[in-house]
Amino acid sequence: MAKPDYIEEMEQWSESFEYGYPVTVRFSETDAFGHLNNTVAFVYFEQGRINFFKDIGLGEEWFSKGGEGIPVTADLHCDYVRQVFFDEKLTVSLKAAEIGNSSVDLHYKVTNEQNAICMIGRGRMVQVSRKTGKALPWTDSARSLLEASRKK
Amino acid sequence: MAKPDYIEEMEQWSESFEYGYPVTVRFSETDAFGHLNNTVAFVYFEQGRINFFKDIGLGEEWFSKGGEGIPVTADLHCDYVRQVFFDEKLTVSLKAAEIGNSSVDLHYKVTNEQNAICMIGRGRMVQVSRKTGKALPWTDSARSLLEASRKK
Amino acid sequence: MAKPDYIEEMEQWSESFEYGYPVTVRFSETDAFGHLNNTVAFVYFEQGRINFFKDIGLGEEWFSKGGEGIPVTADLHCDYVRQVFFDEKLTVSLKAAEIGNSSVDLHYKVTNEQNAICMIGRGRMVQVSRKTGKALPWTDSARSLLEASRKK
Amino acid sequence: MAKPDYIEEMEQWSESFEYGYPVTVRFSETDAFGHLNNTVAFVYFEQGRINFFKDIGLGEEWFSKGGEGIPVTADLHCDYVRQVFFDEKLTVSLKAAEIGNSSVDLHYKVTNEQNAICMIGRGRMVQVSRKTGKALPWTDSARSLLEASRKK
Repeated sequence: MAKPDYIEEMEQWSESFEYGYPVTVRFSETDAFGHLNNTVAFVYFEQGRINFFKDIGLGEEWFSKGGEGIPVTADLHCDYVRQVFFDEKLTVSLKAAEIGNSSVDLHYKVTNEQNAICMIGRGRMVQVSRKTGKALPWTDSARSLLEASRKK
Repeated sequence: MAKPDYIEEMEQWSESFEYGYPVTVRFSETDAFGHLNNTVAFVYFEQGRINFFKDIGLGEEWFSKGGEGIPVTADLHCDYVRQVFFDEKLTVSLKAAEIGNSSVDLHYKVTNEQNAICMIGRGRMVQVSRKTGKALPWTDSARSLLEASRKK
Repeated sequence: MAKPDYIEEMEQWSESFEYGYPVTVRFSETDAFGHLNNTVAFVYFEQGRINFFKDIGLGEEWFSKGGEGIPVTADLHCDYVRQVFFDEKLTVSLKAAEIGNSSVDLHYKVTNEQNAICMIGRGRMVQVSRKTGKALPWTDSARSLLEASRKK
Repeated sequence: MAKPDYIEEMEQWSESFEYGYPVTVRFSETDAFGHLNNTVAFVYFEQGRINFFKDIGLGEEWFSKGGEGIPVTADLHCDYVRQVFFDEKLTVSLKAAEIGNSSVDLHYKVTNEQNAICMIGRGRMVQVSRKTGKALPWTDSARSLLEASRKK
């Protein structure tokens, strides 16, 4: 595959992830071509993303009822590198690649048990106010948590 | 297949449906056995059910924000009669088989373009109060709408 | 809830499961009523079922390319007992309740972290020949594996 | 939203679509935030894409058993512009933006009943040989069909 433009140098990028979420491919996620259906990549991304946020200490606020902000997906991208099949054990790795005022750019790397890359991707999440529907800047503590996740 | 016990006489039952909802099998709904994944039957049932309720005049209340009651699935059953493949045009037929105090027993019949039965099923829906979480009896008008759907 | 007719005595039934498969509720599996969408129960059933078959030693044949037989879902039933929400950790318990000539009746019990029952169900799987599309009787070894799973 | 870099001029781009596929948002496709779950965009993209290929005369070969080539997703991108809710009637518009040797870059535009843009996207499909797993150049007739779709 050609290197996606959100990656500067592939090997360095590939080694820059601290967090991984395990996923096993379900049979209902395959399709009649015999492999994982392309749409499921984004289900894995979402599941990985939510657990990444929980892992770094963010996210409880979002998924509890009281919080003011909720995370909204601004965009998502996936490059499909290698076919994936039923019952493969994958790892969805994530990192906060860029931290904005009220948003964060996340990078994704999905690898198999041989540590070969199956999918890579990126996407921007924006924190939005439940009340106004507008972008809600990170609190200092939220920003600190996001930044700390990059220095592990 | 053996006749399910919720059907008294197959031919009569099969002809007793007035409402049908059209569905085309998506590629992402197939699986690596090359056919429609079994779990998708219940997605079609739900989509047919909601549109059946809308068609008979019920349901707007449920899916608007203000309504007191919401429909809750008590049980669901599916008998798989015939394999279904990508891109088949199906009809999900529904009827209110039995009307309880705050519930309704729905019957389902999914047929293909040759009018052959692919899946049949049933399931009980209960109207539940958003506030109390308990069963909420049908209003007279809701009951009338359900009964009218059986006399068309 | 009323006791389903496939259960003789609830407490005894509930304690008769030897195998459990862990599942965490994904955000994409919830719906706008704020809870787990009813259709996902059958995704969990399938995922649990396949892993149950693998656990007892059956199933490798089915999901490898060479095998003659494949498992086909004849029917599925779910009773919804308790609402389930995002991120709950569930256990999908399974057992072979009845073993036929070429089929097996599986029972399902889905419990939460407090061991409270959320869903229960049953469904018949039939082993079908890839070539003829007809029921394929269990081999002696397959039958032994199914029977052994009941005596653990 | 900021204009994605695959779009030169927004209004002209928006009016350049000839093909549209209708989709109604299912309840099972919403999530606990009350709107369409982000992962479903790619289900709509796939469903629109397959029907676009069928509409222009390509695709029958891919989804019949005999064909040598199958379409493989190389990458996919979605920009989320506007929240979408249960039961909205959407149109998934598609066009062949760029035609390569064995690939095609598709653009996507999803609009609601008021013709407001809800999602936009792009993605490259590659025709791959079932036998070799390698890129399979378009036949002249396939290329002609793709090119004809741009001149309607």
